[in-house]
Amino acid sequence: MRTRDLLSIKDIDRAEAFEILDTARELSRITDGAVKKLPTLRGRTVVNLFFEDSTRTRLSFEAAAKRLSADVINFSAKGSSVSKGESLKDTAQTLEAMGAELIIVRHGSSGAAQRLAESGWIKAHVINAGDGTHEHPTQALLDAFTIREHFPEHRQDFSGLHIGIVGDILHSRVARSNALLLTMLGARVTLIAPPTLMPLGVESWNVESSFSFDDVIPELDAVMMLRVQSERMNDAFFPSEREYARDFGLGAVRLKALKKSAIIMHPGPMNRGLEISAAAADSDQSVILEQVANGVSVRMAVLYLLMGGAAVPTEGVLV
Amino acid sequence: MRTRDLLSIKDIDRAEAFEILDTARELSRITDGAVKKLPTLRGRTVVNLFFEDSTRTRLSFEAAAKRLSADVINFSAKGSSVSKGESLKDTAQTLEAMGAELIIVRHGSSGAAQRLAESGWIKAHVINAGDGTHEHPTQALLDAFTIREHFPEHRQDFSGLHIGIVGDILHSRVARSNALLLTMLGARVTLIAPPTLMPLGVESWNVESSFSFDDVIPELDAVMMLRVQSERMNDAFFPSEREYARDFGLGAVRLKALKKSAIIMHPGPMNRGLEISAAAADSDQSVILEQVANGVSVRMAVLYLLMGGAAVPTEGVLV
Amino acid sequence: MRTRDLLSIKDIDRAEAFEILDTARELSRITDGAVKKLPTLRGRTVVNLFFEDSTRTRLSFEAAAKRLSADVINFSAKGSSVSKGESLKDTAQTLEAMGAELIIVRHGSSGAAQRLAESGWIKAHVINAGDGTHEHPTQALLDAFTIREHFPEHRQDFSGLHIGIVGDILHSRVARSNALLLTMLGARVTLIAPPTLMPLGVESWNVESSFSFDDVIPELDAVMMLRVQSERMNDAFFPSEREYARDFGLGAVRLKALKKSAIIMHPGPMNRGLEISAAAADSDQSVILEQVANGVSVRMAVLYLLMGGAAVPTEGVLV
Repeated sequence: MRTRDLLSIKDIDRAEAFEILDTARELSRITDGAVKKLPTLRGRTVVNLFFEDSTRTRLSFEAAAKRLSADVINFSAKGSSVSKGESLKDTAQTLEAMGAELIIVRHGSSGAAQRLAESGWIKAHVINAGDGTHEHPTQALLDAFTIREHFPEHRQDFSGLHIGIVGDILHSRVARSNALLLTMLGARVTLIAPPTLMPLGVESWNVESSFSFDDVIPELDAVMMLRVQSERMNDAFFPSEREYARDFGLGAVRLKALKKSAIIMHPGPMNRGLEISAAAADSDQSVILEQVANGVSVRMAVLYLLMGGAAVPTEGVLV
Repeated sequence: MRTRDLLSIKDIDRAEAFEILDTARELSRITDGAVKKLPTLRGRTVVNLFFEDSTRTRLSFEAAAKRLSADVINFSAKGSSVSKGESLKDTAQTLEAMGAELIIVRHGSSGAAQRLAESGWIKAHVINAGDGTHEHPTQALLDAFTIREHFPEHRQDFSGLHIGIVGDILHSRVARSNALLLTMLGARVTLIAPPTLMPLGVESWNVESSFSFDDVIPELDAVMMLRVQSERMNDAFFPSEREYARDFGLGAVRLKALKKSAIIMHPGPMNRGLEISAAAADSDQSVILEQVANGVSVRMAVLYLLMGGAAVPTEGVLV
Repeated sequence: MRTRDLLSIKDIDRAEAFEILDTARELSRITDGAVKKLPTLRGRTVVNLFFEDSTRTRLSFEAAAKRLSADVINFSAKGSSVSKGESLKDTAQTLEAMGAELIIVRHGSSGAAQRLAESGWIKAHVINAGDGTHEHPTQALLDAFTIREHFPEHRQDFSGLHIGIVGDILHSRVARSNALLLTMLGARVTLIAPPTLMPLGVESWNVESSFSFDDVIPELDAVMMLRVQSERMNDAFFPSEREYARDFGLGAVRLKALKKSAIIMHPGPMNRGLEISAAAADSDQSVILEQVANGVSVRMAVLYLLMGGAAVPTEGVLV
């Protein structure tokens, strides 16, 4: 992989995306067996620098780093009184001076990870674990990984797969990163949202869009339900939770409308009963827990490739 | 051990209780020497899923897991906004998908650990680290371990030992688990509390009960003082702290009334000056710090036996 | 090193100070190479017992302990409801019973570390990581280490070096520990502060003092800027932030007045624009990030020497 940092799906091309997914598959194959840990990053330090809470994402990166035997420092910068711009610089430089070689940053402002990586402040690698409404590239990679496992005939090319992303597209970094990655891999992507939650200029995203979930659902091979984030809802983006669930939730009726071969995805944590019913979340078509497991593998691959793993070991080393 | 989970003392029989205590003794013997760590659980992940704060219990399990070389994820679910039932299921499934093989759960609701283990949500083993006013089985096991070390002639049978448990029996999971375990091992147990803090139906517990500490104290071989938990006191269970200390505290006068061979126990953290005087807590008869040390050994044994340690290594492996 | 604990710079003599600095240098030389970790403290447990928040200091000790392969328990005692005196004793004894062999304590009260070490409560080693306005000895050691690296001709004797410490001397444990250590090593130290922030009886400190930064600055070989801690400012110690910056801040004009060979130091975190300008903090003369990196090395040395490392390994062992 040529990039030093993973800030956006735009940092990688199609071949590199497949390199990450192949590496993740190989690492997952090794660590699912008797060997649970690889010694690859032993003695090297990785930092979770989180300006926003996200226990899931933090734990996933932590698990990935530990399976590669790295030391993990968790730095929760939430509630820091220092002014944002300076704090980010001084905090990152301090963490690097303590030995951090890679910083995983989560920040409420779009562009924060990029600023950290490209300002010249630090030499450490940077992974964007979500910046404002901008991007969350490892989430898109784990989603692509999950789709690929379920459609092995599309392993080298997602052409012919139709993927729907449903919900608050406007505020979703997950939707943005997935639209970029899945179309790059060849898939057809349709964004589904009420007009108030569909971004302006979505035409330029190289995707289709629809205001009607029911129109699109029978054609989908994968349906990705986004979390309704009430904290993001500053204005009245939709009339009521009930109406949202009726028009854009995945409930019993839409579950039947879905192809039997289609998979149901959600980045978590779910609002059961709002964007997704319990029956849909727990159905045989749901791959939501596989997404979580794949998240660890994909993050292992990204850490591995960024921090200079030369080649994937073909044999695990028992640690 | 046949049980997959440790939710209640009722999950084990007398032989299994002694198996845990013997294993704890063996593991303690090994790790007290030059060898501080065993490689038994290397690469395996254990989660502390705590819906209530309890730094001591969390650190004790963490220390136990680390001495067996496991990776530990601490997940503090306190203050989570998700509705309780769903949160427990989704959270546990997510942690398992990230690789957790055993979940140690602390929860304010009685039965939470059982629900987690028996709902079919996860395959991971579950240890109950305290659920509401119900049970806290590893606390009872460490207490039994401590008593056994001080009465070696009762190593295979607690018959003839008389143990008093004093204080807020009504709200105490520690009292409940100890009453079950100690009577199973053969001890005579007397619960000592004011009428307002004695549970209804205590007759069915197979123990004796008394409203007078002074009547019972000269006969006891071990006296277990419970913490007064003011947060549990929603109503006026006792008139004043002063009166409680006078009637049910272990102070100078009662310290003299105790047999010289008797031991003083407390699960911690202590309210010195309320249920126990500083002189009693620090006396030669106090084994309170031994309880803490034994807690790590007992938890090592439980992790070891549940996660499939075949046999206790007779030789430590230097890590 | 003869001392069991590091509570104050007064615990060590000049030869021992140089022993720590030499050990730190050797450990830093080893772990800057391909070898990132030494197995020296494998299986041994070190506790960060912090009654005050200090993410930097905690992470620095944590990084140091991990590079020596120790297990680290972080215990944030802030907000504990237990009364201070008892909490410190019971908490420390509990941590020791769980296996802690060394306790790093940070506390808001001057003398807390000393009480912990000298009360007979525990056998574990104690390191003072800041107690009230009293001392912070590892900070002084890392500052001395940093000065030494920049003035190699003074490696065995700081005579001839003139070091200014500027700001809130009155409340600064950093100033106190540095004044003790730097003068012991032979340096000339000048404390620079407004009269309201200069301690009474500073004459007995074996240092010089000045109310005028401008008078002293051209003579200094190192200038150590202290953080303005607004939380320490209960009374009106200075008229305004603006006035403080004008009289005691390191800005553009004073940066020019400084010798070209002089170094700029700050214990962090900085208030950029208050006690130090961004230009000064980021100038070629600034060694602030080196201080952070050296902090890890110095803390490794102290852990190593207190916990009984016999001799510094001349060869790293690849872990």
